[in-house]
Amino acid sequence: MPRIAYVNGRYVPQRSAMVHIEDRGYQFADGIYEVCVVVNGDYWDMEGHLARMQRSLGELQMAAPMDMSALKVVMAEVVRRNRLKNALVYMQVTRGVAPRNHQFPAAGTEPSLVITARRFDFNASDAKASKGIAVISQPDIRWGRVDIKTVGLLPNALAKEAAAKAGAAEALLVRDGVVTECSASNAWIVDKTGAIVTHPKTNQILGGITRQTAIACAEELQIKVIERPFTLEEAKAAPEAFLTSATSFVMPIVSIDGARIGAGKPGPVALRLREAYKARAARG
Amino acid sequence: MPRIAYVNGRYVPQRSAMVHIEDRGYQFADGIYEVCVVVNGDYWDMEGHLARMQRSLGELQMAAPMDMSALKVVMAEVVRRNRLKNALVYMQVTRGVAPRNHQFPAAGTEPSLVITARRFDFNASDAKASKGIAVISQPDIRWGRVDIKTVGLLPNALAKEAAAKAGAAEALLVRDGVVTECSASNAWIVDKTGAIVTHPKTNQILGGITRQTAIACAEELQIKVIERPFTLEEAKAAPEAFLTSATSFVMPIVSIDGARIGAGKPGPVALRLREAYKARAARG
Repeated sequence: MPRIAYVNGRYVPQRSAMVHIEDRGYQFADGIYEVCVVVNGDYWDMEGHLARMQRSLGELQMAAPMDMSALKVVMAEVVRRNRLKNALVYMQVTRGVAPRNHQFPAAGTEPSLVITARRFDFNASDAKASKGIAVISQPDIRWGRVDIKTVGLLPNALAKEAAAKAGAAEALLVRDGVVTECSASNAWIVDKTGAIVTHPKTNQILGGITRQTAIACAEELQIKVIERPFTLEEAKAAPEAFLTSATSFVMPIVSIDGARIGAGKPGPVALRLREAYKARAARG
Repeated sequence: MPRIAYVNGRYVPQRSAMVHIEDRGYQFADGIYEVCVVVNGDYWDMEGHLARMQRSLGELQMAAPMDMSALKVVMAEVVRRNRLKNALVYMQVTRGVAPRNHQFPAAGTEPSLVITARRFDFNASDAKASKGIAVISQPDIRWGRVDIKTVGLLPNALAKEAAAKAGAAEALLVRDGVVTECSASNAWIVDKTGAIVTHPKTNQILGGITRQTAIACAEELQIKVIERPFTLEEAKAAPEAFLTSATSFVMPIVSIDGARIGAGKPGPVALRLREAYKARAARG
């Protein structure tokens, strides 16, 4: 069965799903995106992702392509047409098509909307979590507004590629000695008291939806949450480290730059949090 | 006559010139570009632009879509098919189309190449230069590798939009008090001794081709060139300021943040340099 994508008002075979060469997403990275997962037919944290999308649009003074209730209908339809029970849904909005010019196009220019869905392998994620992942550190050279979820992801792609070349699954991004987050996820450590620590929400990190849900889960589990910057050195010496993202949930980190974290296997706090996250997401 | 664009091996009507939704240029800003001008049928500084394109590709470990001699043939053909004598030629190369994943796609993935041309109004540029332009200052919040000419231009677009809203033509980008460059051009001042000053080539500015040619012109004119950082305060107090870019050549600045520069009209050094640049470019 061919995959179906939604592109600017039409459901089309993904193979031939196209946008114009003067779409501002293509020429200026003038666009934003969200990725959500669907598990057993249900969107996880959909409201959080849609709220963040609205925030991203607002920060960039970009019009929404449709209202959020209409968007939910299209999101559901993309999943349905692709006959998926477990899906990774990608949504991208750009400032639309206009003759190339840095300045914003004329008011009333229609934003572009692309939505795709692909199969999400829930079991593969669990298998990966049971072993934990290796990460490396990379300098955080991104721009000053990474709190906006834009498609300007080249520095993230370069960091992820460096990780892959080093045989690692992710890159911790480090600015002035501090771990801000990862290339496509938020970074966490467990401190000596058993509290979990992550960078506060500033312009220097993307405020993860899964990060927020993980905080709620930790509170349910009576695990203390501390939002403060931590250094790469502190992370390497931590009893546990993990990352969170919409597609990884809570993913234990077992090594950083080749140095073992804790016992070199997934830590108990990360695994408890992962189970709590899955249970909470599943009950909606 | 419909405009013709070159897209991945074909000359197509620009109206219907499309790229795939999973082109990495669209999803990751994983691409680079160049803009050249053609005046009276001749490319200006083409070798410089092609050399910089090769550098950008190399820095991003991205394959060239074709060798440079073939690329010149396509560039000429795009101009010819659009029947242009004076043209602005836009070339964009991306890492190609692949299932969305931050990591680079499999080796052998074909890069994408888009080339467009539009009419370049040489006289309008001269008319603008005879009056000079107003600029405003904006914080430079771009990433750490702006020496690579990537399509990750959202911060530049935001700065340019802020300038337009303020009734200005460009934005001076300021980092730690220092003017790095503008949103789409290099920034210069004339100091009290009549020397011209611009930010040195580092990772914090794009090494402009026109900047380089302007340096050569200044040397011909026996104007001293100093490559050093200068502050916004220094710029506001300078006898003259100007910017350089492939499409603006040498463009006098007559106000910064509403404050008049020098006599509030194009300065003699900038105007001499502009004439010298045009003469040099025209003789190839």
